[in-house]
This record gives sequence, structure tokens and C-alpha cells, in this order.
Amino acid sequence: MSSGHIVKSFDEELARVQNAIVEMGGIAETQLEAAVRSLAERNTELALKTIEGDKAVDALEHRIDDMAIKMLALRSPVADDLRIVISGLKIASLLERVADYAANISKRVIALNSAPAIAPISSIPRMGELVRRMIADTLTAYSNADAALAYDVWARDQEVDQLYNSMFRELLTFMMEDPRSITSCTHLIFMAKNIERIGDHMTNIAEIIIYQVTGDMPKEPRPKGDKTSVTMIDPKEG
Amino acid sequence: MSSGHIVKSFDEELARVQNAIVEMGGIAETQLEAAVRSLAERNTELALKTIEGDKAVDALEHRIDDMAIKMLALRSPVADDLRIVISGLKIASLLERVADYAANISKRVIALNSAPAIAPISSIPRMGELVRRMIADTLTAYSNADAALAYDVWARDQEVDQLYNSMFRELLTFMMEDPRSITSCTHLIFMAKNIERIGDHMTNIAEIIIYQVTGDMPKEPRPKGDKTSVTMIDPKEG
Repeated sequence: MSSGHIVKSFDEELARVQNAIVEMGGIAETQLEAAVRSLAERNTELALKTIEGDKAVDALEHRIDDMAIKMLALRSPVADDLRIVISGLKIASLLERVADYAANISKRVIALNSAPAIAPISSIPRMGELVRRMIADTLTAYSNADAALAYDVWARDQEVDQLYNSMFRELLTFMMEDPRSITSCTHLIFMAKNIERIGDHMTNIAEIIIYQVTGDMPKEPRPKGDKTSVTMIDPKEG
Repeated sequence: MSSGHIVKSFDEELARVQNAIVEMGGIAETQLEAAVRSLAERNTELALKTIEGDKAVDALEHRIDDMAIKMLALRSPVADDLRIVISGLKIASLLERVADYAANISKRVIALNSAPAIAPISSIPRMGELVRRMIADTLTAYSNADAALAYDVWARDQEVDQLYNSMFRELLTFMMEDPRSITSCTHLIFMAKNIERIGDHMTNIAEIIIYQVTGDMPKEPRPKGDKTSVTMIDPKEG
């Protein structure tokens, strides 16, 4: 109704930041899905496209940073509003890393595709799908301020860690049995590790959401299921 | 002079945040040094101590977060002051991850020490020392707002990447020649990767310092020297 400048409300600005975060998360989810599919399909073209797609995520992170800093400078939010802006900055930084991991998986797909397909890839798509759903649910929990769903994602990370543990052992054993597969299996271990790390980042984002909605952190200590750092396999086991 | 409340100046509060960051960075540097030394000495006790030491870094990150959020809420800083507070939050989050990597190296040392020492570890201490110096110099650059030194750290990361590349190839070849070393060498590759990532984080912090001091980012594109994601080694090479 009024003419002249339309001054956006704080809530509108906040909604813009939140929309950008959901958009960023959606791209990160797609990037992970594409990276894993490029492995299953041995699709180098898709892998290259996924690496290229990382730029859009980086650009969105910069945009969210700029929006948040502008809000802090011009609105001087306090209490809950301040926490939401700071959470936005943190979540954007975590999502940027998620997309980095997807790009790294894609690079390794290109390396794998340059050699015969000898290594067992089958667990990667399963792990990838589990974690892709964690991303989707985290974004829904964020949009709807749904602490119960965020808690569900947080608890689900243990399943990913267990898959990663068994895959780590399986790949080490495979390398021992067929040393020609060593380079390929090493790349697969790193891919699995990347996916496991994406799962970790989702639990971090879930914690931020839970804290934002309830003012509390999850009561139990964070389930730490990745035991691969202390795994040793005796060659005689293989 | 005046009685009653002593209201700290904004500059004093900022100095407290900056001191906490330098303290946090100093611990992270010590943690990396200890993790690498525990590998060279096959010292499980030191490795356990290093894992335990990670808690102090996490606690400092929370303290810095709280201080920064309190400053944002009560001081409503703008312009340069606001950027310094936000940079502090980001640097603290990067240093927390650096210490995580050191703790992860220590976990792998414990695993390695449970098996005979067959894998070649010699490049890790060299890489560790390079990166430890990057941490020290980054903290000096931060304390002194020294953009030239930050730029020097930023450029040095390429050397770390080159060391990592050659180590990656060396370890793959070693595994092919002696499949009994596969598990140990895999842990060494992850350790080397952890150190390489710490170097990456130092270049990120260096960029934040350069931006804070000069208002600009480094002119050249960031040197990306880690080529291991696309490395394949033909078993016949080994």
C-alpha cells in the first residue's frame, strides 16, 4: 500500500535465509545421489557434471553468509533470532562440506572408471541411499522445526557407521585376496568414508535443529559407531 | 576509579575471543605434534593422552561460540568489528576439526601398534612437521594481523599436497608388494590424508586472515595440489 521503499520484515529476511539453506541442502542431496549413481553406472560424464555442480553450492554458501552478516549488521537480532541466524551460518558451512564430499566421490569414480571393474562396489549405493534419506529428512526437520524428526536422523547415523565398518573390513579382505584391486578398493574405502562423514554432518545439523527447537541437546551421548580407525585385520583372517 | 560494575570495552572482549582462539590453535598444534610423535615412537600411552586432549579443544570452541554470541547480542557490532567476530566463530570451528584429525591419527596409531611394524611410516613425520609449522605461523599471522605471513602459509599448502601425493603412491605400491601390510598401510594413508586436510584448513584460516586484514582474497586461484582422488596405480608399476 505505501509507496517508496518496501522495508522487509526481519521474519521475511529470516525466511529467505532458511529457503536458501533448504535449496542448498537439496542440491547437496542431489549431488550425493548423482555421485553414487555415477559409480554404479560407471558414468564418467555424470561424475564430471557432479564435480561441476559443486560451484552452485559454494555460491549459495556465500549468499547465505552475506545475508546473515547483513542481518546481523542491520537488524542486531538478539535471543532466539540471533541463534537462528548463527545456526544458519553453521548449517550452510556443514552443507558446503557435504557437497565437497560428493564432488570427491565423483573424482574417485572417474579414477575407478579408468581401470577394469574388479572391486566390489555394492555396499556403496546402499550406504549412499541411507545417507541421502538422512539429508532429505534433515531438511524437512529444518523446514518444519521438527525436533522429533531431527532426533530420528541423529539416531540413524549409527546404522551408517555399522555399514561403513563392515564395508571397511570387506574391502581390506578383498585387497588381501586380490592385490590387483588395491588401488580401486582404496578409492572405495575413501568413498565410503566420505559418505560416513556426510552422515556425521547430518547428525551435527540435527543437533543444531534440536537445540534450536527445544533449547536442549539430545540426552544420550552421541552414538559413535565408526570403529574403523582402530580396526586391524590379520592377513590370516582374509 | 569508578565504583560499581566495570563494563569491559568491546576491544577488551574482542581481545578475549582472539586470545581464546590462539590458545585453541596452540593446543591443536600440540595435539598434531603429539599424534605424529606417538606414531614415530609407537607410543600408545601418548596416543591415548592425545585422544583425551581433544576435549579441551571442544570446550574452548564452545567458550568462543558463547563469547561471540554474547558480543553479537549485547554489542551489536557492525562493519569490521562484526566481521572479526564472525571470523572468530569460523576459525574456532576449523581449529576444532584440526584437533579432531589429530585425535583420529592417534586412534590409528593405537591400531598400528597392535600389529608388527611393517609399513613405511617415514614420510608422515615430515608431513606432520610441515603442517605443524603451518599451524604455528597461521596463529602468528592471526595474532599480528600479518597478511603477508598468512599468504605465505596459504601458498605452502601445495608442498603438503605434493608430499601427500607421493606418499599415497608409495603406500599403494608397498601394499601391492606386501599384502600383509594392507591394513597398516590403509591406516597410514588415512593419517596422511588427515594431515593433508589440516593443511587445507590452515589455508582456509589464512584466507580469512588475509580477507580480514586487506579486505581482499588472494589473487590467484587456490593451488589445489591433492591429486590422489584421481590416482590409479597399475599393479605392473609396483
